[in-house]
Amino acid sequence: MGGDPAPRGDFAVLTDADLAAFREILGDDNVRTDARSLDACNEDWMRKYRGNAGVLLLPARTSQVSAILRHCNARGLAVVPQGGNTGLVGGGVPVHDEIVLGMRRMNAVLSVDPVAGTVVCEAGCVLEDLEHALNARGMTAPLDLGAKGRCQIGGNVSTNAGGLRLVRHGSLHGSVLGLEVVTADGTVLDLVRTLRKDNTGYDLKQLFIGAEGTLGVVTKVAMLAPRKPTGVDVAVCAVGSFADAVAALRDARTKLGDCLQAFEFFDRASLELVLSTLRGARDPLPKTKAPFYVVTETAVFGDGSGKGSVTHRAARRRVRAWVRSLRKRGVAIDGVVGEDAKHASALWNLRERISVALKHAGAVYKYDVSLPTERMYDLVVETRNRLAASTSASTSTSTSASTSAASTSFDASKVSVLGYGHLGDGNLHLNVSSPDGYHPGLEAILEPFVYQWTAEQRGSISAEHGVGAMKPRELAHSKDEASIEAMRRVKEVFDPRGILNPYKVLPPRLTEHRSKL
Amino acid sequence: MGGDPAPRGDFAVLTDADLAAFREILGDDNVRTDARSLDACNEDWMRKYRGNAGVLLLPARTSQVSAILRHCNARGLAVVPQGGNTGLVGGGVPVHDEIVLGMRRMNAVLSVDPVAGTVVCEAGCVLEDLEHALNARGMTAPLDLGAKGRCQIGGNVSTNAGGLRLVRHGSLHGSVLGLEVVTADGTVLDLVRTLRKDNTGYDLKQLFIGAEGTLGVVTKVAMLAPRKPTGVDVAVCAVGSFADAVAALRDARTKLGDCLQAFEFFDRASLELVLSTLRGARDPLPKTKAPFYVVTETAVFGDGSGKGSVTHRAARRRVRAWVRSLRKRGVAIDGVVGEDAKHASALWNLRERISVALKHAGAVYKYDVSLPTERMYDLVVETRNRLAASTSASTSTSTSASTSAASTSFDASKVSVLGYGHLGDGNLHLNVSSPDGYHPGLEAILEPFVYQWTAEQRGSISAEHGVGAMKPRELAHSKDEASIEAMRRVKEVFDPRGILNPYKVLPPRLTEHRSKL
Ligand SMILES: Cc1cc2nc3c(=O)[nH]c(=O)nc-3n(C[C@H](O)[C@H](O)[C@H](O)COP(=O)(O)OP(=O)(O)OC[C@H]3O[C@@H](n4cnc5c(N)ncnc54)[C@H](O)[C@@H]3O)c2cc1C
Ligand SMILES: Cc1cc2nc3c(=O)[nH]c(=O)nc-3n(C[C@H](O)[C@H](O)[C@H](O)COP(=O)(O)OP(=O)(O)OC[C@H]3O[C@@H](n4cnc5c(N)ncnc54)[C@H](O)[C@@H]3O)c2cc1C
Repeated sequence: MGGDPAPRGDFAVLTDADLAAFREILGDDNVRTDARSLDACNEDWMRKYRGNAGVLLLPARTSQVSAILRHCNARGLAVVPQGGNTGLVGGGVPVHDEIVLGMRRMNAVLSVDPVAGTVVCEAGCVLEDLEHALNARGMTAPLDLGAKGRCQIGGNVSTNAGGLRLVRHGSLHGSVLGLEVVTADGTVLDLVRTLRKDNTGYDLKQLFIGAEGTLGVVTKVAMLAPRKPTGVDVAVCAVGSFADAVAALRDARTKLGDCLQAFEFFDRASLELVLSTLRGARDPLPKTKAPFYVVTETAVFGDGSGKGSVTHRAARRRVRAWVRSLRKRGVAIDGVVGEDAKHASALWNLRERISVALKHAGAVYKYDVSLPTERMYDLVVETRNRLAASTSASTSTSTSASTSAASTSFDASKVSVLGYGHLGDGNLHLNVSSPDGYHPGLEAILEPFVYQWTAEQRGSISAEHGVGAMKPRELAHSKDEASIEAMRRVKEVFDPRGILNPYKVLPPRLTEHRSKL
Repeated sequence: MGGDPAPRGDFAVLTDADLAAFREILGDDNVRTDARSLDACNEDWMRKYRGNAGVLLLPARTSQVSAILRHCNARGLAVVPQGGNTGLVGGGVPVHDEIVLGMRRMNAVLSVDPVAGTVVCEAGCVLEDLEHALNARGMTAPLDLGAKGRCQIGGNVSTNAGGLRLVRHGSLHGSVLGLEVVTADGTVLDLVRTLRKDNTGYDLKQLFIGAEGTLGVVTKVAMLAPRKPTGVDVAVCAVGSFADAVAALRDARTKLGDCLQAFEFFDRASLELVLSTLRGARDPLPKTKAPFYVVTETAVFGDGSGKGSVTHRAARRRVRAWVRSLRKRGVAIDGVVGEDAKHASALWNLRERISVALKHAGAVYKYDVSLPTERMYDLVVETRNRLAASTSASTSTSTSASTSAASTSFDASKVSVLGYGHLGDGNLHLNVSSPDGYHPGLEAILEPFVYQWTAEQRGSISAEHGVGAMKPRELAHSKDEASIEAMRRVKEVFDPRGILNPYKVLPPRLTEHRSKL
């Protein structure tokens, strides 16, 4: 978990007077101090990070968020913004006793414009709810992820979530048109616009996309909402090597071209985990035991009317033809195209639900890296090798002096290393599943190795999950000191007292000196 | 021109010792003080803005840019970064005696990766040269604009240029993957990455996209380079009203869907200007005298091989069928689809070369606004009405007390008001062409009217051209004071002494107080 947690900063301690002030702003019901509320907001989805907040605040309006922050900033109280709490790097839960600002009551879809292809909603809107609201108007959200039933659009923006449709819609830096943000002292920045183009000064909203709640609280989001496809096809192909998976990607880019919405992959270990853990999951190609699988999602937009407009049936024929040609050319061993919506969704779930299967299987070390596509899977192989070497040495090799428990042995034979992810974006999810729980010895095998290996390929140590509480001290593997220092100074612009989500994202300065604006 | 130029700031004056220092860094040849070099870099493309720089510096490497800025920052000398000098808001030329930093020698394409679909080049690379280099590898740049033969990729990034293919590729905030930037004190920020996903801290590069040289000098650009289409079709349709142009856009989104690369429009006045000004330009539909024309560009990607892959011939049939169906339904009066590449390019030029035609026609007031699509053309109509009202009053109505010469009359009958632009992005170019030159009386009719009208529709007073020297004092029409103040503080992070492109983008603070970091 990136070593010991950061020591508590010099923040004020919550008092009864603070609680009274919050009740004044929010009403009694929305100032939660009961054990159940606090338990839920103090622990992350993976049960890996746990804080000790004394209060959960639930604002319903921007003005309330502003009043809360004004109070906290004046008092020097630290605050963690929390969305759906599905983040995977501990960014949304307190490290010590930070106040949790839960956004779930701010969940309205404010306006949908099908002609312009835009939507404006509050930050606490759950992604799946937004998707349903958009679907009803023939539109779709520009992102989709396995956590959609719980994650919030404000959390997605704050983590710059990538997800499953980035191949098609690109990143949120392109899709988000405007934001409303409350900065640390309660200032409301109205950057809500639904214009596709607006070059009036610095594009400040971009800073908050991916800032993980450390620069401000996102309260409203305006974004592009593309047309919903009239049909979607999912294909799963078994391939004999990772190189073939990459060859299939290249081929899909040319042959499926603009229909391609997603290009994902998983390895055999991931498939077996899903098959053994999740109810109803079936091997998509039971006759083949392949080492790798690629999943494509393609979209059809035509309504079949008018000359040249493609029907879903024709589009599916095209995908089938593509799969056949992969097999014919020996790129794929076998392949299957979803027969209908139900079958397609069963195929898609094999990839989408790997994270959930992993959660059922116990503790998991998750690494989310960007790498040159061709070399991506080498990291999985090297990680397995390291683990095997440590087992054969019958002790866990500690590379980190600070991990005192590293010499305690653990049963490496129970540990499994899985690789899957967004192949079309060069984004690997390396997951190390440990049924016996988190273990410093295991961690010492993995870190800093994974980060160093990634940095050597000029990759990114966080492709989409963010830095959170997990990786501030690893940031230097992906950013040079000049850039990190520039980030610190940007932080000081929007949060001079450092009350917003402390201990996250930025590593502490080496010197104690801290310039104040 | 937004009133009187800003008074000269408290910057140092260039000395012989400075010139000697620059010669040390760059060699004698690249420190230009001759009249020809200075003339060219002191005046903008429109001949509307003119500065008085005493030296043009031509670095060839990032380390030289860094050394120059270190010197200028220490000495308090102001600097204007200049790309191809095609900007339309006076951002790239000095206002007073700022040093011009010309980027044209830094023009190498550093790497092209057809598998990943990415390119890295130096900032001074001319857009068209980059396009040729990419075309040779089956790729294309994610933007295209009329100025491509001169504008540089660093200028495009610095102005967040939109251009003609934004409908397809989205904005540079999504396409730019990484930048190398030198900030005011010479610090080099290495944010060059070719990864599609990288969530390691704040996305600082976004700040420099559209910062118009006020935050740093862009020295390298990494960006997505999509596949080049195997074929392209251009259609021009004549429509009877602006509402029909919008109806055609809606229809194209559904029917041409993902093939659509560009959806542009121009009015009759624009067409007539092009026909009368540019050699070889022909009326695309001579039998119709329509008030509006829409231009579509559609792309084909398939190679025609394999089942389901679309041939260019089939794609063109589809466009023809679409044009026919528009006519049948009465949305379009007439239409033509380019028969071959030459014909297509002649059609496309009618739209692309309007700016050039305007330049030939004399002085031009250019406004570049984002508006709700349906209401976009109302601004052109209202502007014509204001002008007509002023003529009938036989004097130019001054709305600006500060414009003392406003009462001098000008011949309004010679002035023409044109509307054209990127309909698919909600971006109107309102152009007021004045063969007799710029005139305060005319300006007083146009400003602040255009900005106020745009602000009332919650539009943007600069969709793509930027703020430059033209609109700092108009910024408040599109941004609230809290946001402008946040921009000023971001500026102070990267350029605490304010030497980079002063007088541009940001309006001066109302109070004289200026906090120093
Ligand atoms: C099953 C599963 C699948 C996933 N798949 C993907 C995937 O494919 N791609 C991907 O990118 N991620 C994925 N994730 C992780 C992803 O980061 C989150 O799911 C999501 O983006 C976070 O949203 P949230 O509302 O849950 O935010 P939280 O977890 O509550 O918070 C995440 C961070 O954002 C901050 N934050 C939240 N809301 C706000 C706000 N309104 N203003 C300011 N800061 C705020 C928090 O402080 C925290 O730092 C997955 C997670 C799970 C559990
Ligand atoms: C015929 C014509 C058609 C046009 N069509 C379009 C269009 O469709 N869409 C559109 O958006 N624009 C259009 N433009 C304007 C557009 O802004 C510019 O053409 C282009 O983006 C500017 O590039 P440049 O290299 O010429 O920059 P310049 O004009 O030299 O500079 C523009 C700004 O960027 C800064 N700058 C330049 N290079 C750097 C650098 N390396 N680092 C930091 N700052 C830098 C300058 O200081 C200045 O503020 C058009 C212009 C013309 C003349």
